[in-house]
Amino acid sequence: MSIRIGIFGYGNLGRGVESAIRQNSDMELTAVFTRRDPETVKLCTENIPVYHTDSVLEHKDEIDVMILCGGSATDLPVQTPYLAKYFNVVDSFDTHARIPEHFANVDKSASESGKVALISVGWDPGMFSLNRMYASAILPDGKDYTFWGKGVSQGHSDAIRRVDGVLDAKQYTIPVEEALEAVRSGSAPELTTRQKHTRECFVVAKEGADLQKIESEIKNMPNYFADYDTTVHFITMDELKRDHSGIPHGGFVIRSGKTGFNGENNHIIEYSLKLDSNPEFTSSVIVAYARAAYRLNNEGQNGCKTVFDIAPKYLSIKSNEELRKTML
Amino acid sequence: MSIRIGIFGYGNLGRGVESAIRQNSDMELTAVFTRRDPETVKLCTENIPVYHTDSVLEHKDEIDVMILCGGSATDLPVQTPYLAKYFNVVDSFDTHARIPEHFANVDKSASESGKVALISVGWDPGMFSLNRMYASAILPDGKDYTFWGKGVSQGHSDAIRRVDGVLDAKQYTIPVEEALEAVRSGSAPELTTRQKHTRECFVVAKEGADLQKIESEIKNMPNYFADYDTTVHFITMDELKRDHSGIPHGGFVIRSGKTGFNGENNHIIEYSLKLDSNPEFTSSVIVAYARAAYRLNNEGQNGCKTVFDIAPKYLSIKSNEELRKTML
Repeated sequence: MSIRIGIFGYGNLGRGVESAIRQNSDMELTAVFTRRDPETVKLCTENIPVYHTDSVLEHKDEIDVMILCGGSATDLPVQTPYLAKYFNVVDSFDTHARIPEHFANVDKSASESGKVALISVGWDPGMFSLNRMYASAILPDGKDYTFWGKGVSQGHSDAIRRVDGVLDAKQYTIPVEEALEAVRSGSAPELTTRQKHTRECFVVAKEGADLQKIESEIKNMPNYFADYDTTVHFITMDELKRDHSGIPHGGFVIRSGKTGFNGENNHIIEYSLKLDSNPEFTSSVIVAYARAAYRLNNEGQNGCKTVFDIAPKYLSIKSNEELRKTML
Repeated sequence: MSIRIGIFGYGNLGRGVESAIRQNSDMELTAVFTRRDPETVKLCTENIPVYHTDSVLEHKDEIDVMILCGGSATDLPVQTPYLAKYFNVVDSFDTHARIPEHFANVDKSASESGKVALISVGWDPGMFSLNRMYASAILPDGKDYTFWGKGVSQGHSDAIRRVDGVLDAKQYTIPVEEALEAVRSGSAPELTTRQKHTRECFVVAKEGADLQKIESEIKNMPNYFADYDTTVHFITMDELKRDHSGIPHGGFVIRSGKTGFNGENNHIIEYSLKLDSNPEFTSSVIVAYARAAYRLNNEGQNGCKTVFDIAPKYLSIKSNEELRKTML
């Protein structure tokens, strides 16, 4: 029998989940839930019902794992604790500073309901967290580095769009190659914000706007750009659509550590991602963890869990025997 | 209370474990067991007893986890199943083809004794296996690549030493940069053995030996060198000792996979290691998993397990709360 998946929220991430389910032969998409009028939502998969989120509890016996595809700012803090009362759930809550609070809320619901709730699944938090943790456990005497990019930052693109005279914009976060090389050399450098990443902005200005003023406003924007070396390119709307409509991302987690009786040997552990589509990769991670949520709940487990709590085997469609034989 | 570790076998790996324990404040080295005359074994740590392996059972209540540092060819197939009857154990059994058989033997012992036995812990098998597994679960429609090096292959160095006229030798396995780049590009190439790695040999010949004959014999050696582009350098014993006495290694696990309704987006997941000391890094992985073996056994678990079965949190000295707060 397939694992029956529900998708709660149908944006970029929801579509990514829909697509990822097709690559996993032990899963099927059962239903999509939306806050919009379900009649107006057209899925990419045929013959799958779309329901309004208000009716979600009517379908609780049809779904093994509900995947929450809302945002971390306002959706997930409410939705995950609520839905964990009725479903095994997976979310991609990514406000790092609020994870302990979110964990506590979700754990309360899922412990009471006997369901499994996996939070903060994706690549950061998610696979990057795992790699930071594994590497620091292996090399206790060391230093962690996380670099992001090259990739589109939605938050920074939005910030540019709010500048007066800007029609549309896309911002790329780019790791500084020299900083990466310094880390890989084992020199364990101290790096400032400015030394780690640069920011590149592609901006469509309104006709007659003051380009110099826009550029200066972007470059001096506190929190978002002031601490970085920022480049601003003005382009046309056609160019933006043609050259910058993708949502690539990626990054690097590197640990540089020492071993030996005198710390004489250096080791570099590096994990990197180069992603054509940030939401589709995130969805792929989530779907693998949905398998884990289903299996763990079948084993009688419940409560809130993160990637740190899940033995790797639960993610794979292969049997334990097959894993040992083919992947170890 | 500290986790009390025993080291069974005191070669490069055993010394690496001894060194790694010092970096983990929740562990202490309790005893070292050797097949040699214990009087002749000088540890790098003071005031730690060295016992003969024959007396190991006399110390079974003093040790929480025994780390087996013998070889995979003849030591571990006998030692791990035997010691798992009395101790929680960790080994680094690395004969990939014989893992299912080793697992079955060890599982029988450890299930009966109620102990936890972790096998095939290190970096390959070990961290590389984990990364192959995670990446293939996340990107089911993809292709795996493992490259080794640049690093010293003990087996190949030994093979050269058996060639007539050779005094000593060191062999480096080197991944081919063009092959790595082709994989990273997302083109998912089919690569032959020759296209993936080259082999570089540093050979000290006996005086008057026929160098051309040695070189030809090395390059045409079946299984070891015939399928590779091999370079042979003749050097002096002084040069060998000066420039090639380290045991560096490393490598790359790369998965290239596609997502999207038409497989239109490509993703690259890459994990790499650059290690100054192969045995010290392997030991560091083993020591982190010794913590896991101890904790799992305390939770009442038993039987044989591999890295696939261990939730990441068990490796870290940090509490679950601390992990979520600082590493997620």
